[in-house]
Amino acid sequence: MTKLANLDWKTYEKRVSDGDAVILLPIGAIEQHGPHMSMNPDVLIPEAISLGVSAGLDNALVAPPIAYGYKSQVKSGGGNFFPGTTCINGKTLIDTIKDVVVALARHGNRRFVLVNGHFENSMFIVEGIDLALEHLRHEGIDARILLLSYWDFVNKDTIATVFPDGFTGWDVEHGGVLETSLMLHLHPDLVNLDKAVDHPPATFPPYDIFPSDPSWVPACGTLSSARNASAQHGKLLFDVCVNGITQSVRSELG
Amino acid sequence: MTKLANLDWKTYEKRVSDGDAVILLPIGAIEQHGPHMSMNPDVLIPEAISLGVSAGLDNALVAPPIAYGYKSQVKSGGGNFFPGTTCINGKTLIDTIKDVVVALARHGNRRFVLVNGHFENSMFIVEGIDLALEHLRHEGIDARILLLSYWDFVNKDTIATVFPDGFTGWDVEHGGVLETSLMLHLHPDLVNLDKAVDHPPATFPPYDIFPSDPSWVPACGTLSSARNASAQHGKLLFDVCVNGITQSVRSELG
Amino acid sequence: MTKLANLDWKTYEKRVSDGDAVILLPIGAIEQHGPHMSMNPDVLIPEAISLGVSAGLDNALVAPPIAYGYKSQVKSGGGNFFPGTTCINGKTLIDTIKDVVVALARHGNRRFVLVNGHFENSMFIVEGIDLALEHLRHEGIDARILLLSYWDFVNKDTIATVFPDGFTGWDVEHGGVLETSLMLHLHPDLVNLDKAVDHPPATFPPYDIFPSDPSWVPACGTLSSARNASAQHGKLLFDVCVNGITQSVRSELG
Amino acid sequence: MTKLANLDWKTYEKRVSDGDAVILLPIGAIEQHGPHMSMNPDVLIPEAISLGVSAGLDNALVAPPIAYGYKSQVKSGGGNFFPGTTCINGKTLIDTIKDVVVALARHGNRRFVLVNGHFENSMFIVEGIDLALEHLRHEGIDARILLLSYWDFVNKDTIATVFPDGFTGWDVEHGGVLETSLMLHLHPDLVNLDKAVDHPPATFPPYDIFPSDPSWVPACGTLSSARNASAQHGKLLFDVCVNGITQSVRSELG
Amino acid sequence: MTKLANLDWKTYEKRVSDGDAVILLPIGAIEQHGPHMSMNPDVLIPEAISLGVSAGLDNALVAPPIAYGYKSQVKSGGGNFFPGTTCINGKTLIDTIKDVVVALARHGNRRFVLVNGHFENSMFIVEGIDLALEHLRHEGIDARILLLSYWDFVNKDTIATVFPDGFTGWDVEHGGVLETSLMLHLHPDLVNLDKAVDHPPATFPPYDIFPSDPSWVPACGTLSSARNASAQHGKLLFDVCVNGITQSVRSELG
Amino acid sequence: MTKLANLDWKTYEKRVSDGDAVILLPIGAIEQHGPHMSMNPDVLIPEAISLGVSAGLDNALVAPPIAYGYKSQVKSGGGNFFPGTTCINGKTLIDTIKDVVVALARHGNRRFVLVNGHFENSMFIVEGIDLALEHLRHEGIDARILLLSYWDFVNKDTIATVFPDGFTGWDVEHGGVLETSLMLHLHPDLVNLDKAVDHPPATFPPYDIFPSDPSWVPACGTLSSARNASAQHGKLLFDVCVNGITQSVRSELG
Repeated sequence: MTKLANLDWKTYEKRVSDGDAVILLPIGAIEQHGPHMSMNPDVLIPEAISLGVSAGLDNALVAPPIAYGYKSQVKSGGGNFFPGTTCINGKTLIDTIKDVVVALARHGNRRFVLVNGHFENSMFIVEGIDLALEHLRHEGIDARILLLSYWDFVNKDTIATVFPDGFTGWDVEHGGVLETSLMLHLHPDLVNLDKAVDHPPATFPPYDIFPSDPSWVPACGTLSSARNASAQHGKLLFDVCVNGITQSVRSELG
Repeated sequence: MTKLANLDWKTYEKRVSDGDAVILLPIGAIEQHGPHMSMNPDVLIPEAISLGVSAGLDNALVAPPIAYGYKSQVKSGGGNFFPGTTCINGKTLIDTIKDVVVALARHGNRRFVLVNGHFENSMFIVEGIDLALEHLRHEGIDARILLLSYWDFVNKDTIATVFPDGFTGWDVEHGGVLETSLMLHLHPDLVNLDKAVDHPPATFPPYDIFPSDPSWVPACGTLSSARNASAQHGKLLFDVCVNGITQSVRSELG
Repeated sequence: MTKLANLDWKTYEKRVSDGDAVILLPIGAIEQHGPHMSMNPDVLIPEAISLGVSAGLDNALVAPPIAYGYKSQVKSGGGNFFPGTTCINGKTLIDTIKDVVVALARHGNRRFVLVNGHFENSMFIVEGIDLALEHLRHEGIDARILLLSYWDFVNKDTIATVFPDGFTGWDVEHGGVLETSLMLHLHPDLVNLDKAVDHPPATFPPYDIFPSDPSWVPACGTLSSARNASAQHGKLLFDVCVNGITQSVRSELG
Repeated sequence: MTKLANLDWKTYEKRVSDGDAVILLPIGAIEQHGPHMSMNPDVLIPEAISLGVSAGLDNALVAPPIAYGYKSQVKSGGGNFFPGTTCINGKTLIDTIKDVVVALARHGNRRFVLVNGHFENSMFIVEGIDLALEHLRHEGIDARILLLSYWDFVNKDTIATVFPDGFTGWDVEHGGVLETSLMLHLHPDLVNLDKAVDHPPATFPPYDIFPSDPSWVPACGTLSSARNASAQHGKLLFDVCVNGITQSVRSELG
Repeated sequence: MTKLANLDWKTYEKRVSDGDAVILLPIGAIEQHGPHMSMNPDVLIPEAISLGVSAGLDNALVAPPIAYGYKSQVKSGGGNFFPGTTCINGKTLIDTIKDVVVALARHGNRRFVLVNGHFENSMFIVEGIDLALEHLRHEGIDARILLLSYWDFVNKDTIATVFPDGFTGWDVEHGGVLETSLMLHLHPDLVNLDKAVDHPPATFPPYDIFPSDPSWVPACGTLSSARNASAQHGKLLFDVCVNGITQSVRSELG
Repeated sequence: MTKLANLDWKTYEKRVSDGDAVILLPIGAIEQHGPHMSMNPDVLIPEAISLGVSAGLDNALVAPPIAYGYKSQVKSGGGNFFPGTTCINGKTLIDTIKDVVVALARHGNRRFVLVNGHFENSMFIVEGIDLALEHLRHEGIDARILLLSYWDFVNKDTIATVFPDGFTGWDVEHGGVLETSLMLHLHPDLVNLDKAVDHPPATFPPYDIFPSDPSWVPACGTLSSARNASAQHGKLLFDVCVNGITQSVRSELG
């Protein structure tokens, strides 16, 4: 369970020299998550999960997270117009992913896990990976990259436990039970559940409008209620993600 | 029901001079859709739907489709390694969307509907729209853009009719009943149902691997079986999409 | 005489597997062509010619046209300020050409013909080709690309026949006899010769001014009169282009 | 002394609504700093200093650091070829700075302090700032940005104390007394002084060679010896930087 | 007849403060021009002509030439594969033109003449101008730019005199009578007519092939013979260009 | 002592065919240098020094200078707001360096010296070189590039002679004794020492402010006084630079 950047370079060199180390790269965003929570869950959760996964692997290192992500969308993050939501252009995210993967591969690394914590990032990460692999092939380097969003590892049993009143989809889980529970487990000091606003899950029409219409979004910024969030749920969610990801990494990159 | 580019410019000028025309822009991709169908359903279907929608609006024009889209992904389009799948970089798609919207807005247009027919395009279109609106604001122009993927307008009743054995999600509907039925309705000459391969819906792990692993994908390239496709289903799907989109456009941009 | 995208991928794979197929890529623009004609001749004509050429070759396929081209210039297209003229930035066109050629080459194709229908596109296509070939070389792929603008294949005899009153150059043939005749031959429904404005060929000073000065251009948008246009001339022009291009492709890529 | 991203968005909104908040943005790099220290001092030190400065201002917030910086150079960072040194392209850094500043300014912020911790970043930050301000001016926004590298606030007295044997310049202070002392003060767990290699300050010719020549650099990666580093020196350096920067911010942005 | 960069800034400020100065910007290329001539005629000739034009205007300044231009093409410059031909990418030229025009406009200049000396540059200059004017409009600045290639000012009488055996077009005048005569007039030390190779004008098919085929081009690199070149012809050509351009500038920007 | 572009291509081919020629590329800027001097010393001085160096090497050629450089900064060039200072974006300079080096390497050249004359250019040149070498490696080409700023070769003895009253650093030598003396030696017609303003060296706080604050800069634009400048000092400075660089090139690339 090691942060890559906390190593001195000699130790790092030894760890990665045979190309078998697994490098986990958390990718998040700075985005409002309601009045009851800090604006960094999309960074802190994937970093914590990455560290958890690294603990279960023989030789894994967690690279510094990419903290700034793609622009928040109304139907998955409330929208980019909220004060505090601080996002970058798509091309900038593509280039950042590409550059960081290429740099890490040049150290000899060939096995990567990109752990996404922000819904809107996914396709720009995909493109960054594609450009990185294309670039590396031009240098005669073949790498293998596993890309995931951590919530896709929450299984049905856990969903049934955590969402006893029914589950309305990951997209509206913005600032809701999933993220709030994980933050209560990982960073309780960054949550004040008293300030959470109880409201029914947001519903949206089957299209988007630009410029975004703030009236589509609950004024508090969350897309579902965090009422049922708890540290206990958070631990359950964390464990199921860490275990699922660890198994996947072992079978795919092991 | 008019294609914008089929007008002469004087007629076009009259149609758009008051800024109330609705411009529909279909956006697709050239991508394999199994051995039983041509590689252009992602272009032809949104163009046909756009034309259908335009027929129900007072003053709507359909711009020439953007034919080349973002790289096919394994879990929604089979993957970018299939011969025939001919895709462009994310930045190129972003720039194309931006440039075309800006050019059309400079003619006086303020109301746009972008009709997507290729799952992988969505976030790059979002970014193209965002950059276009930002650019137009620097020129003192405010426009309003509705973005949709047509399948999101298929309602539950239609799903129950078209997928009597159960619906496994739009993502694996690649080359399956949805697209094949629509093509049988719209372009029966481009479908040969005899060549469709019957296989259970593809299932995937909760992550992606890059470079893509062809063994994840049915060898035929479809992600679900087109066995139950029919022109009748196609008409039903077409009508429900056209009607739903028409209503949405009327209420949002009317 | 086959559109690439109308094939299913298995058929396409067979056609291109040995690398000997010729891929024709039409490149056009959406641009006003006077009050008597639609705004898509720069797309429709090169696509029709490409299909005509493909019919005379053993194994040729026509890729979907690139519909949006570089900004119309006063002295060859009337200027970019006409309503309806819908053009993209130079870098976007460069990138599109590059991406599409690279994607097609990765299917195994090594022989390309890029058929331009819009004067202003030429140099940006040249650069797209150069960047594509450079990129492919980095992947160990050598391809061979023939680039042409179809009007350069109209020979002197045909010019004498079609322009009996004298020929003033391809640049001012915008919306004139050449394009109108071809459209009358290929798409008579998109031409209304009654609306054509008869005026002498536009003459210009030996320089350009930016921003463009609309007073330089006939108000109707054409640069020469379409009065002598006819479907018969169109057939003659079409045939001479198709034949000339077919011969050139055979001798260069055969 | 508040991390911006640790606030909930409602609290943040209140803090920045009048445009008088000072936003501090630390910018670093992941770069080897010798065998005795972790690879993140260029991030951790400016973040700690930013937090220190924020404590002395009425209303200041520290944004999440930009962790990945420009490529390490031989004469100031040992060079980009060391395992562990993980850097991004110049254009990517320019775009990141631009995007983050623009996003923060759209929340209403008008006063920024960019706190650099990596020598090689400086000019790319300058360009990112210039492009951000240009972009914001197009939106009618005027902001004011103070850019600094923290070591430029170490005064002569402190230099005399910390470098009793003479000071050879900030450029060769890579992994030497300055950074090691600060890390001993701030993050003693990330330093193991026993592993520091004692060597005379690196000297270089008055030019650079590319590709870099590793033989120019001490094999341990530091450019001067950390022998005299101490937590006490670290506190002294930290305080002088924090005090100096605080005064400058007060006088320039107060 | 003043080079802008030879002024001190105070003098320059006085000259441009009222916005009425005409700024001439020569744009060339480094490109082989046969064995009898240096590789810089495309820079030296437009610079000399610009200086000549400036002498006939009330308040004109010649900016430093842009020396590196777009890639040489077979049919107008022999091709980019010749040793010595040193060219830049299209996007780089677009950006250079844009940046330089924007910078000069920010000094208060509103009247520009871009004097091109390299056939292949034209469309990239057009795009650079378009982007510059768009950028300046976002800053509330309207400028007026005249773009020309100097040879377009050679009138019929001069052609008859200089090409007594018939004129085969400016495209094959690469390294021929036009450029050689002008260089004999302006820089006789850079021409050695004894080394000129006498050959008939190059003829080309009505298409291009990429990668370029060197066998299309006379081995000496010129596209027509310089045999009839003379300093006397050079003076004639120079004068007709300078006079024609001067008149055009006066009438358009006067 | 040869300008590359003054050669005909056949002679050039002979000079570079064995890959042992040294190519010197001067890189400057157009920037105000006080009321007593032209705005091109950053171009003219490195070009003259490059020519001087080339005279002492067996086979060296000086490429045409890159005349437009990165934006002037307050603390080293007075700032980008002075009329006459005409600078380009960082990305444009990066791309120009990359393209020119790649083009020259494709002629067979493997040994480069980039001679910088403008403080603010340095890091963008570094990045241009890095991208060029990366690109060339993808083509199987290894080149070796020496980068320098000429003033770094002025040794202590010369400093003592030229700055008898004490030396305050190269950064404030903008328009001062160094550059003025060199221009008096090389281009006395471009200097009018009578107009030089005598003022103490500029002093600056240890940070930068953007937008730049003109009140930080002496109104004349120089950062130190040119009072002690002389052609004699210029010759001394020129010789020490030429000699030092020549020796370095011999030992590194010889």
